[in-house]
Amino acid sequence: MPDKLETHTHGLDVAKTPASRRSGRRPGESQSRDAILRAARELFSEQGFSGTTIRAIARRAGVDPALVYYFFPNKDGVWSAVIEDVIGPLDVLGPALKEGRDNLAERLVAAYLTPWEGEHGETLVAISRSTMAKGAEHPISLLTDPGRLARTIGGTGAQLRASLILSQLHGVAVQRYVFRMEPLASVSVDRVSRWLAPSLRVLIEPNEP
Amino acid sequence: MPDKLETHTHGLDVAKTPASRRSGRRPGESQSRDAILRAARELFSEQGFSGTTIRAIARRAGVDPALVYYFFPNKDGVWSAVIEDVIGPLDVLGPALKEGRDNLAERLVAAYLTPWEGEHGETLVAISRSTMAKGAEHPISLLTDPGRLARTIGGTGAQLRASLILSQLHGVAVQRYVFRMEPLASVSVDRVSRWLAPSLRVLIEPNEP
Repeated sequence: MPDKLETHTHGLDVAKTPASRRSGRRPGESQSRDAILRAARELFSEQGFSGTTIRAIARRAGVDPALVYYFFPNKDGVWSAVIEDVIGPLDVLGPALKEGRDNLAERLVAAYLTPWEGEHGETLVAISRSTMAKGAEHPISLLTDPGRLARTIGGTGAQLRASLILSQLHGVAVQRYVFRMEPLASVSVDRVSRWLAPSLRVLIEPNEP
Repeated sequence: MPDKLETHTHGLDVAKTPASRRSGRRPGESQSRDAILRAARELFSEQGFSGTTIRAIARRAGVDPALVYYFFPNKDGVWSAVIEDVIGPLDVLGPALKEGRDNLAERLVAAYLTPWEGEHGETLVAISRSTMAKGAEHPISLLTDPGRLARTIGGTGAQLRASLILSQLHGVAVQRYVFRMEPLASVSVDRVSRWLAPSLRVLIEPNEP
């Protein structure tokens, strides 16, 4: 699963660099595809997955619906491409894990929450909502692969501790950004981190409970 | 909000006791209403909110659709009644909070996770999925009111700490029961509690970080 996703992500990164655009598809094609994905991202954010049609995506992108089907097999295909477009390049855990275990808790909180604060925040909320509804596996948690975190923290029950850490981060993100639970929704990321990091640290430390 | 919900819950408990049935609505009415709610609960679990129609609920309950509209204003009304029916009587936090702060972490984990393991587990999963999709506030987190937990744990930032504790419990429940993230999905509640409780305890203790 992680391997597949990482390949995916890398493929996407490559496809999105200006260099590969020049050497890959014709510029017109990739501009149309980008316009379709941008329109889809906006519509999924505004109206959710089930409220969005291929026709509406085409209309907003200013293209014929047939062109949407030229790039994507169906609405699920557009959806997956939007998710990869937004979440793929984030690689939430990678940079946080690279620096090892010192202050790992603080880096995890920042790495996990910061993307929700930025330009793609609304899309992440929409993705959370729609993925939950669709019954699919959660793409955000898939990208925050417990395996990599487990290897960094090590020790007894590392896999379980890693999945508990990611569950907690996920729960905090959902309650803060999707359900806007107060007072969690209104305090700064920094303040969340100050309270949350010591709690995560208990799971980062490899002590049998 | 908490007061409204508590009143709700109490109203519901009273309405569901055999004693009040005898003194309240005629038996035939309350049996029809129960049959409709049972059918709705099954259909929402199987097909989600958007995949379920009033007509389908009536068919499964063996009643005329008009009778569904006699009890409920619309599908949203049926949905709310199903949620109250399943979640209302749970009162996840109440009993856990009554015994004060000793072993509160362990009691919270058990109180929050146990209902998902029982007969209503599938319905809770369906409610989580559909509520997330509908964009409504999360009824499970509403019932686990941070205010009551905050009063029990006390100290600096009690409200924020309480909402972080509930977010973590919610995140663990969602990853375990909805997304079935491994290894979290396969271990016992007891094992989850042994690892999770020490981490929650850091937020239960009223020490400024």
